[in-house]
Amino acid sequence: MDQADKQQNFTDEERRGVYRAIHERRDTRHFVPGKVNPDVLVRIINAAHHAPSVGYMQPWRFIHMTDPSYRDSLIELVNEERLKTAEALGERGETFMKMKVEGIRECSDIIIVALPHKREEYVFGRRSMPHMDLASVSCAIQNMWLAARAEGIGMGWVSIFDPEALRRLLAAPEGVEPIAILCIGHVECFDDRPLLEIQGWDKRRRLSGIMMENKWHND
Amino acid sequence: MDQADKQQNFTDEERRGVYRAIHERRDTRHFVPGKVNPDVLVRIINAAHHAPSVGYMQPWRFIHMTDPSYRDSLIELVNEERLKTAEALGERGETFMKMKVEGIRECSDIIIVALPHKREEYVFGRRSMPHMDLASVSCAIQNMWLAARAEGIGMGWVSIFDPEALRRLLAAPEGVEPIAILCIGHVECFDDRPLLEIQGWDKRRRLSGIMMENKWHND
Repeated sequence: MDQADKQQNFTDEERRGVYRAIHERRDTRHFVPGKVNPDVLVRIINAAHHAPSVGYMQPWRFIHMTDPSYRDSLIELVNEERLKTAEALGERGETFMKMKVEGIRECSDIIIVALPHKREEYVFGRRSMPHMDLASVSCAIQNMWLAARAEGIGMGWVSIFDPEALRRLLAAPEGVEPIAILCIGHVECFDDRPLLEIQGWDKRRRLSGIMMENKWHND
Repeated sequence: MDQADKQQNFTDEERRGVYRAIHERRDTRHFVPGKVNPDVLVRIINAAHHAPSVGYMQPWRFIHMTDPSYRDSLIELVNEERLKTAEALGERGETFMKMKVEGIRECSDIIIVALPHKREEYVFGRRSMPHMDLASVSCAIQNMWLAARAEGIGMGWVSIFDPEALRRLLAAPEGVEPIAILCIGHVECFDDRPLLEIQGWDKRRRLSGIMMENKWHND
């Protein structure tokens, strides 16, 4: 055991890997053909399962949609909500409708992520903030994203759907809350900036615009 | 530029770094003295700022609590909610009260993470699921956690407080929603398992218990 191991420290290259994954991860809508190696998929899901969770609740459930016939139903769900979103966006609705918001047809694997039912049993860390279960699942999805990036695999989180309609499609009991349609697959490349920045939808805020000291003093 | 760069691939060691961060990250409550290097802190916050966000909303705000007098107020907030949680937990309340749930006094840096007000303007990806802003902020916090682990720094997410009381402490406008008191600092070591597992609160589910195929079929 060398010095680095004893101290549980990361090597420079391992640390660089973590920052690369964080900075080079993209929310992917464009995929190229080819199946993702099932072993890689298991590593990515296992990465999710090692996320932190409030009170060790592990409130994440993953439904792997292997039957291709579901792709049409999922695209239909997204298209319905897409039109409603465009309408709600008002003058930006037209720009929004030109954007590709999902890669359901082209990706290798689709995984639905959902919060389970019977969550009211879990009180630790959630009594005053019950939505901390969603926070935990989101940490799990971020782990998947970074693991996928490290494996050279793209992932996109689609949240443009009616969660109740998706719950019924899954034949899931009441109380189950789908939060993501994840599209996972091979990509031609990873863009150097977020797609919504490249397309001019918005730009990254400056660090000074998100940092404050001791008191709230900006918006 | 070598082959790996051209393909944007990770080296084996970089990829190992990502998985190490994911598997060796801990929700930390025990800190040792010593200030975290301010450059490291900036890298960690910048990692948060490179998280994905719904509609590129970037709904994360970080309040660095540098005035030491706030530590008492934060501990008071947590202790109040801790008692209420213990009561709500019923027979497990006594076990819960024996657990260390925060390291506010001992950590080097405290950062409050909050959702900003005026979020109703953002509709992209949130019309049917407005809570996707919390999902984005949680991805940002997971980035911080992994970056901190890669830097050899511990971090704990405390969610045991009344968010409205914390909002008032920050003098933040209505609509601002604090979601985390993050304790960041040096640690003696990183445990090989989650603290709540070591303490016997719960154990990790098997992968088969969180995975399904095509339809909901467990729990």
